[in-house]
Amino acid sequence: MASFKDEALHIHKSNQGKLSIKSKVPVRNASDLSLAYSPGVAEPCKEIHDRKEMVYDYTMKGNMVAVVSDGSAVLGLGNIGPEAALPVMEGKAVLFKTFAGVDSFPICLATQDVDEIVNTVKLLEPTFGGVNLEDIAAPNCFIIEERLKRETNIPIFHDDQHGTAIVTVAGLINALKLVNKAFTNIKVVMSGAGAAGIAIIKLLKSFGVHNMIMCDSRGAIFEGRPYGMNPVKEEVAKFTNRNRIEGQLEEVLEGADVFIGVSVAGALTKEMVARMNEDPIIFAMANPDPEIMPDEAKLAGARVIGTGRSDFPNQVNNVLAFPGIFRGALDVRATRINEKMKVAAAEAIASLISEDELHDDYVIPAPFDSRVAPIVAKSVAKAAMESGVARINVDAEDVAEKTRRLTITDKD
Amino acid sequence: MASFKDEALHIHKSNQGKLSIKSKVPVRNASDLSLAYSPGVAEPCKEIHDRKEMVYDYTMKGNMVAVVSDGSAVLGLGNIGPEAALPVMEGKAVLFKTFAGVDSFPICLATQDVDEIVNTVKLLEPTFGGVNLEDIAAPNCFIIEERLKRETNIPIFHDDQHGTAIVTVAGLINALKLVNKAFTNIKVVMSGAGAAGIAIIKLLKSFGVHNMIMCDSRGAIFEGRPYGMNPVKEEVAKFTNRNRIEGQLEEVLEGADVFIGVSVAGALTKEMVARMNEDPIIFAMANPDPEIMPDEAKLAGARVIGTGRSDFPNQVNNVLAFPGIFRGALDVRATRINEKMKVAAAEAIASLISEDELHDDYVIPAPFDSRVAPIVAKSVAKAAMESGVARINVDAEDVAEKTRRLTITDKD
Repeated sequence: MASFKDEALHIHKSNQGKLSIKSKVPVRNASDLSLAYSPGVAEPCKEIHDRKEMVYDYTMKGNMVAVVSDGSAVLGLGNIGPEAALPVMEGKAVLFKTFAGVDSFPICLATQDVDEIVNTVKLLEPTFGGVNLEDIAAPNCFIIEERLKRETNIPIFHDDQHGTAIVTVAGLINALKLVNKAFTNIKVVMSGAGAAGIAIIKLLKSFGVHNMIMCDSRGAIFEGRPYGMNPVKEEVAKFTNRNRIEGQLEEVLEGADVFIGVSVAGALTKEMVARMNEDPIIFAMANPDPEIMPDEAKLAGARVIGTGRSDFPNQVNNVLAFPGIFRGALDVRATRINEKMKVAAAEAIASLISEDELHDDYVIPAPFDSRVAPIVAKSVAKAAMESGVARINVDAEDVAEKTRRLTITDKD
Repeated sequence: MASFKDEALHIHKSNQGKLSIKSKVPVRNASDLSLAYSPGVAEPCKEIHDRKEMVYDYTMKGNMVAVVSDGSAVLGLGNIGPEAALPVMEGKAVLFKTFAGVDSFPICLATQDVDEIVNTVKLLEPTFGGVNLEDIAAPNCFIIEERLKRETNIPIFHDDQHGTAIVTVAGLINALKLVNKAFTNIKVVMSGAGAAGIAIIKLLKSFGVHNMIMCDSRGAIFEGRPYGMNPVKEEVAKFTNRNRIEGQLEEVLEGADVFIGVSVAGALTKEMVARMNEDPIIFAMANPDPEIMPDEAKLAGARVIGTGRSDFPNQVNNVLAFPGIFRGALDVRATRINEKMKVAAAEAIASLISEDELHDDYVIPAPFDSRVAPIVAKSVAKAAMESGVARINVDAEDVAEKTRRLTITDKD
């Protein structure tokens, strides 16, 4: 029997990758050719030349996302470069298509220079309706995202940050219901100050969490900490750890309601869990091994435990977020993906688990729950229209219905 | 009944463009997901990281061509910009797929700066197995092509130049058989010194033509002409019009065996045709109206007449060349498309018309002749291997067979 490794290599090699291009129009004869190409193609060209917005009507742009990477932080593999990153970006494109009918195309760039990446993506803007940044190392990922948001007119989304944040927060919404606590009253301690951690902290702020402490390998981050800071940590320090507590993770975790780990295996011990507040909620998302194994955390008194792994309950899987988010953003021709759209996505994901179904091991829907992408798309489209970043207004129910129609997972 | 214009707009709008992305692997459940994405996808990533060449085995790169344009010279529409050029590039991708199973993706760039275009394409190199430059105005198209050929390791092909040249020369090969003349003895006069004209002149040189005169709007070009020159004309002047004849097109056309027009309607008159040598061969490819209408040319004594139009015999249609050329280049993982591969493509196209079938109105195969792409692919692959630009050796017959299998036009 073939090993998992052999099987993984085989499906990539036998297909020469995972993506191909499909024509939506037949070209079987001269008449077809004259419509899809010269001379007929001149007609949409002229329409777009007269009014640039028409590019959304007559071309693929409105359903096409660039999956952009420089290969600097790929999965757990690190800085493996653009060629070696390509299988991941193709995989991402497969998920976009499969889960929400979003067309996307890998753009693996032969540079890790911020200016070059920003400039290249800006030059690609005519072709794409949105950009998903992927597997770009911190702090470049923050700078690239911020600059592209300012300098382009299409949605820019760094999935490693915001996808993870949205699904984590969705899980937390439901976990808080189980333990009868409110965002405004909880204490959250985070282990890890990378891309995902920062984004989670920011999204929690949007949900009204006041009491948060973020730790890096040198302990609690606070405003003005004289060591190991960077611009993003400085920004986070402005609205977290307001009492400027100094100390290691285990010290500041005392009395916390929620632990969120985006750091390394073993960062959380049973003893530390035992010192948290009543009904501790743990999202231990280090890969492949979580900060604490779920059974250990349970033994130490944890109430709800989520990880990044599919073999434990409450998997924080980005595939719950990004396909529906882009489906919704594209369908209203959004100019950006703003905080309100992210909040809407988290709430939509959480809403799928009814109070009856909700329990400690089920606060996050399963990746293949086919209700997810449609409700996320609909909620994101609605939030985009309400917050003024949609170029067109549509019926949000139509977005959900279209998503259901385009989703491939629950058919055939 | 819908007008042609309405129909052309309809097929673009109803499909939201002409291209979509297709996944070659199913993702229906957690097991599929673990192979196509995390954690299984790490295996091909590691293989490619160990040996970069493996990107051709495990990713889409080996079958993926970038169709790059800056929108500066689109069809007969001129400088309409990257958004308005997108329908044409999507159309091109449809033809690549339909005629030879080549996946390709439009890259319409928001710049017309040579350096920016060159740099961007270089940064995109990890993702693509080849680049088809399209609808970029002269002289930038020459500079961009030359620089990319030097600065990348994948085939760079400007179809407006070389596609047109290859098909024109294919037609000329057969026309010369009809009139019993040889490349080495004919006099060729060209009207037009744009991208296609220059490429045709260069390819004719590879076929042994010595006696050529190229004319622009100011008449015959000769070495050292003190007016209206540019670097490309200077280059051409080095090996054409060796007697430095000065004069208007009608003067230098005296006694010519072949007229090639890539200029404007009306550039060739009956009187001018009448002053050519016996059995004049005319390729009048101005669009949409040729330099002379075929019936007029016939009346004036022309023997073989080709145009760019599908409603006349002997259509010079690039679709006869570029799909098979890239199919052949990709299948041997060529590092470039060199002169020998272009010569091979022209000869392959010409070879499809047997001596029995050959006549004045049939020197070029029809665009939907399904034998074309396979024989072009095979011949180009063979020429690449023989001239040392192939990364791998394959059986050329397999290339032809694969092309037949992947061609969509003559099925369903």
